[in-house]
Amino acid sequence: MAVGLGLLDTIDSPDDVKRLGPGQLTELCGEIRETLVRYGHLHGGHIGSNLGVVEATVALHAVFDSPRDRIVFDVSHQSYVHKMLTGRRLAYTDPARFAEVTGFTNPEESGHDQFVLGHTGTSISLACGLAKTRDMTGGAGNVVAMIGDGSLSSGVAFEGLNNAAEQGGNLIIVFNDNEMSIAGDFGGMYGPLARLRASNGTAQPNIFNAFGLDYRYVADGNDVNALVVAFREVKDTDHPVVVHIHTMKGLGLDAGSGKDAHAGASNTSHAEPWHSDHCNLSDAHAHAGQCEANHWLNPDSALGRPDDPRKHYGKLAMAALEKRFPAEPGLTVVVPATPGSNGITHAFRERAGAHYVDTGITESHAVAYAAGIAKAGGRPVVATTASFFQRAYDQFFQEAALNRTRVTILDFLGGLSGSDNTHSGAYDLTMFANIPGLTVLLPTSRDDFLADLAWATAPEGAVPGTHADGPVVIRVPGSPILDAERAGVELPRWCPSGHGTAAVSPLDWRVTRRGSRVAILGLGNAYPLAARVADALGAELGGDVTLIDPHQCSSLDETALESLRGGHELVVTLEDGQLEGGWGEKVTAYYANRRDERDAARNPRVINAGATKEFTDRVSLPDLCERYGLTEDALLARIRRELARGSDF
Amino acid sequence: MAVGLGLLDTIDSPDDVKRLGPGQLTELCGEIRETLVRYGHLHGGHIGSNLGVVEATVALHAVFDSPRDRIVFDVSHQSYVHKMLTGRRLAYTDPARFAEVTGFTNPEESGHDQFVLGHTGTSISLACGLAKTRDMTGGAGNVVAMIGDGSLSSGVAFEGLNNAAEQGGNLIIVFNDNEMSIAGDFGGMYGPLARLRASNGTAQPNIFNAFGLDYRYVADGNDVNALVVAFREVKDTDHPVVVHIHTMKGLGLDAGSGKDAHAGASNTSHAEPWHSDHCNLSDAHAHAGQCEANHWLNPDSALGRPDDPRKHYGKLAMAALEKRFPAEPGLTVVVPATPGSNGITHAFRERAGAHYVDTGITESHAVAYAAGIAKAGGRPVVATTASFFQRAYDQFFQEAALNRTRVTILDFLGGLSGSDNTHSGAYDLTMFANIPGLTVLLPTSRDDFLADLAWATAPEGAVPGTHADGPVVIRVPGSPILDAERAGVELPRWCPSGHGTAAVSPLDWRVTRRGSRVAILGLGNAYPLAARVADALGAELGGDVTLIDPHQCSSLDETALESLRGGHELVVTLEDGQLEGGWGEKVTAYYANRRDERDAARNPRVINAGATKEFTDRVSLPDLCERYGLTEDALLARIRRELARGSDF
Repeated sequence: MAVGLGLLDTIDSPDDVKRLGPGQLTELCGEIRETLVRYGHLHGGHIGSNLGVVEATVALHAVFDSPRDRIVFDVSHQSYVHKMLTGRRLAYTDPARFAEVTGFTNPEESGHDQFVLGHTGTSISLACGLAKTRDMTGGAGNVVAMIGDGSLSSGVAFEGLNNAAEQGGNLIIVFNDNEMSIAGDFGGMYGPLARLRASNGTAQPNIFNAFGLDYRYVADGNDVNALVVAFREVKDTDHPVVVHIHTMKGLGLDAGSGKDAHAGASNTSHAEPWHSDHCNLSDAHAHAGQCEANHWLNPDSALGRPDDPRKHYGKLAMAALEKRFPAEPGLTVVVPATPGSNGITHAFRERAGAHYVDTGITESHAVAYAAGIAKAGGRPVVATTASFFQRAYDQFFQEAALNRTRVTILDFLGGLSGSDNTHSGAYDLTMFANIPGLTVLLPTSRDDFLADLAWATAPEGAVPGTHADGPVVIRVPGSPILDAERAGVELPRWCPSGHGTAAVSPLDWRVTRRGSRVAILGLGNAYPLAARVADALGAELGGDVTLIDPHQCSSLDETALESLRGGHELVVTLEDGQLEGGWGEKVTAYYANRRDERDAARNPRVINAGATKEFTDRVSLPDLCERYGLTEDALLARIRRELARGSDF
Repeated sequence: MAVGLGLLDTIDSPDDVKRLGPGQLTELCGEIRETLVRYGHLHGGHIGSNLGVVEATVALHAVFDSPRDRIVFDVSHQSYVHKMLTGRRLAYTDPARFAEVTGFTNPEESGHDQFVLGHTGTSISLACGLAKTRDMTGGAGNVVAMIGDGSLSSGVAFEGLNNAAEQGGNLIIVFNDNEMSIAGDFGGMYGPLARLRASNGTAQPNIFNAFGLDYRYVADGNDVNALVVAFREVKDTDHPVVVHIHTMKGLGLDAGSGKDAHAGASNTSHAEPWHSDHCNLSDAHAHAGQCEANHWLNPDSALGRPDDPRKHYGKLAMAALEKRFPAEPGLTVVVPATPGSNGITHAFRERAGAHYVDTGITESHAVAYAAGIAKAGGRPVVATTASFFQRAYDQFFQEAALNRTRVTILDFLGGLSGSDNTHSGAYDLTMFANIPGLTVLLPTSRDDFLADLAWATAPEGAVPGTHADGPVVIRVPGSPILDAERAGVELPRWCPSGHGTAAVSPLDWRVTRRGSRVAILGLGNAYPLAARVADALGAELGGDVTLIDPHQCSSLDETALESLRGGHELVVTLEDGQLEGGWGEKVTAYYANRRDERDAARNPRVINAGATKEFTDRVSLPDLCERYGLTEDALLARIRRELARGSDF
């Protein structure tokens, strides 16, 4: 246990915070900061964000009466301090209990948590709704939304701001202004915000006033007692008010890291410890990945590990694009605010110059913006995490697919993973592959991945078919593929004879081994598993079974599917995402609906393996694979059962 | 041909506009206005929006050099004048040619049209992208985004504003400020905007300045020569600038309608002809549906027709909710800006008071807001058009489904229709029904519809199962169901014996006729067709076939599906939406993957009928049904072929 946690040890609920005098509140903040730094080094997490709001959170609980007063933390990755103060401090001080709480607010953990949130910008809308019902039903209590740290660039946050004044009534919006988004501030509003800070909150234009909102400014948002005064002033307000607090993200990390020996920490100066210029150095400095602002801190346990798949393949993609920048001025990487997690390094961004645009946390804008780039002849590549792309669903339909703009999407963390429930990639193919006109590729090797990127982003060519003619989603390979590549596993690769003489197209399914009786189709990350199952089954049956790497899931390759008739009694599809609305069911339905077109050839039966339609929260990938029968043993057993039954229906 | 179209008759391209002197420009605007009113009465369309921007559009083409200068019309329903000036005037003056152009910009029609657009708020992002490529590739020309008329409340528009100043370079944003959204202005920003207008553009806070943007104001946005001066001043600007023009929506309708005998037109005063207070009177006044601001004008041909399904069932839903308002203070109807089209009448809204909230065109906010309302114990009902709900996809996942908030969605215009390609509802079930935790109901009668609404919105009850326990989407019935109800067709209804003794639950599939050999399952709007096919087939086979009204498509009713084994050789699913990722394929996959659980009973074969994955543009519903084999004849022929083959595989 760290030294000097005397006060924190006494906090079991917000009531215990309210007992403290001004000096003790400051002392408590110090202890919390120390706890956060220690926790961050050991466990990882959104430490920078939380260090910035230590005082604000303590002040909120000193002034407001949670849960009667409802506090909504936008995106909620900055809720660690809130959790410490609401009965969950041991989950941050006792390493044995670190796993007891999630990284986000969660009503199942505590009545002080209003929502499970992990996507940005909705706190004001949620708070407006809470306040609306309170006012309709004669309820009481304050409603507080805490937003900032880049979230204010999200469109839905502006929609919420515009709603707040119109609705009226008690609503307090704490704008946590730490001068940055995830990897630096982005956008025209940051200049006026800087002038607002410089004028101690008096300058115009004041964007909050422009949305019709009352406004207060707290210059030192890391002074707990100043915050207590400000919050007391607005508590029980009869109208919506914004409290703009100027905080310093990551405040205190250097003090904590001084105890450690990691070089990266010394990169953070006292003056601007977490600013973007110091961030995203994770390539060069062991520990400075901490300051990839909103994102996962690299804990001690991760030191020295090789890049995860996102960083690995992201770096490969950026390197391939970078080579083309001099000759292709319209080639542009567009990132809605999470570059570092996806291998889009600080050094790359510096070199890319105008070829790189961080749009802030604005997925809708990013995809529409890319459509504009493409329409004018440029080649945009939009890169972010699969679940965040959900926020641009309508833009995929309208501006990208319907307009056939040559937008390329790099879809990171798609498919099954041990992620929390707000960031799961299990639903990406259900989203993307059912949109008409969107091509969805799932490369299963480094070479495929780079070839797909080249095909999607190639200039218009004289030869039709040598490049995409509309928007393309490339699912970035995950750990099953990277692990296989690193281990030197030679997966069966494209065998052109399977498809006749046609050239390799990204749209052709790849029959990588031609056998009989059973065909195993492994989509994307499921391909290495498919290959293992095919090997084992072939040995068992005493003859090759057919293996297919479909490589894309936005259309069915009828040549490949028809080639399985007659010689195959069973087709097995494997995918590492949701079965319902997913890919395998389309294969099943294909054969079910095409029986009458091939009188001579018997239909193969089809079975599908993939994920159940459900939310999962931090269940490890191996556990998910067990749960869904996506293991070699489970699949072999299931295939044996099917074969034993024969064509008995 | 109308009188006095001498100048318009000479306009074949923007060059012809540029030849005109100031007096002629004014004259041309008069002719265009007259043409629009005549067109509107005969054909319908977004007439109010277009009347407001006659002068702005003429001035844009007088000053800028389209298509070298790229003009992006946000949502593009206000592009009629643009089309008239770019070679397509005959499509507005000659009734025989009205169908030659779409209601939206369309690059396939003209190189002057940049994008197909029908959803709001993306023009600034698209323009930023066009400008980005221009600047990266050494291109030339101005980029102009024309936005307003409610579109500025969309979150993505703010994301775009925030991008513009950051990017720099030539970019002109024309903000068409007609003081309204679709059914009245909404939001805190409208007060400051009013002060900006009152001060001739000088007051602070100026929201555009707050996004770091340069700014001009044109007080009379219907003075073509003033606009020409303003646009000349900003043409070839080296930095982004907003030109805020104050226009009057629907200007001139009264003059035009004076020639007609329709009572509704006289409701529009000279002072505020299109303002929200005068709008949405379509219930009481034959022709005043014209001024449901952005939305379809009721043309002469529609006079006297009964309500379409959206208005019919929307009114029923609102009437049912309204009765409960006195006893249920938290019951709240939330509409992201399109009430009138969906039967949420002006009179209802007046009576509903605080039970009704128009959020402006903000689907993301509306759903998150509803989640907040529900979390606090209220019962929100969010109503809009299916394709607009795409903009809240992430909120359905996160704030609604993951948080299990009791949000009710009224999904209007879902399923196949003759809509244009930007508003098609063919994709709604693929979107909604694949989200874990979202219940999707498809009532097939008025009574079902109201029962479903009651179940979804009911207060927490003592008896489990008597109400929903999470978010519910109710697909509002379409014309196949309303037509059947109006014609007095008695569709087979729920026969509880099919399901044993269980009470009727919205989650149970309804076996409405129990037969053998073939089972026809007709989802939602496809149920009347399923009933007809079942009748005809039963007669043909000399015995009843089984008919099922599944009523929901978010989960499979295994009891119903298992009951078909053994006695049925063929299961036929019908749905009026996209097959891929849709509902029928889940039924197919169910049987394919459950063979081994019922050793004794043979699996039925399954075939699926529904829509191809494609965009369609104003193809009539009967033509779509022909195309997809969703007719009685096509289905009977297909079923006969399947039965003739027998179980031969």
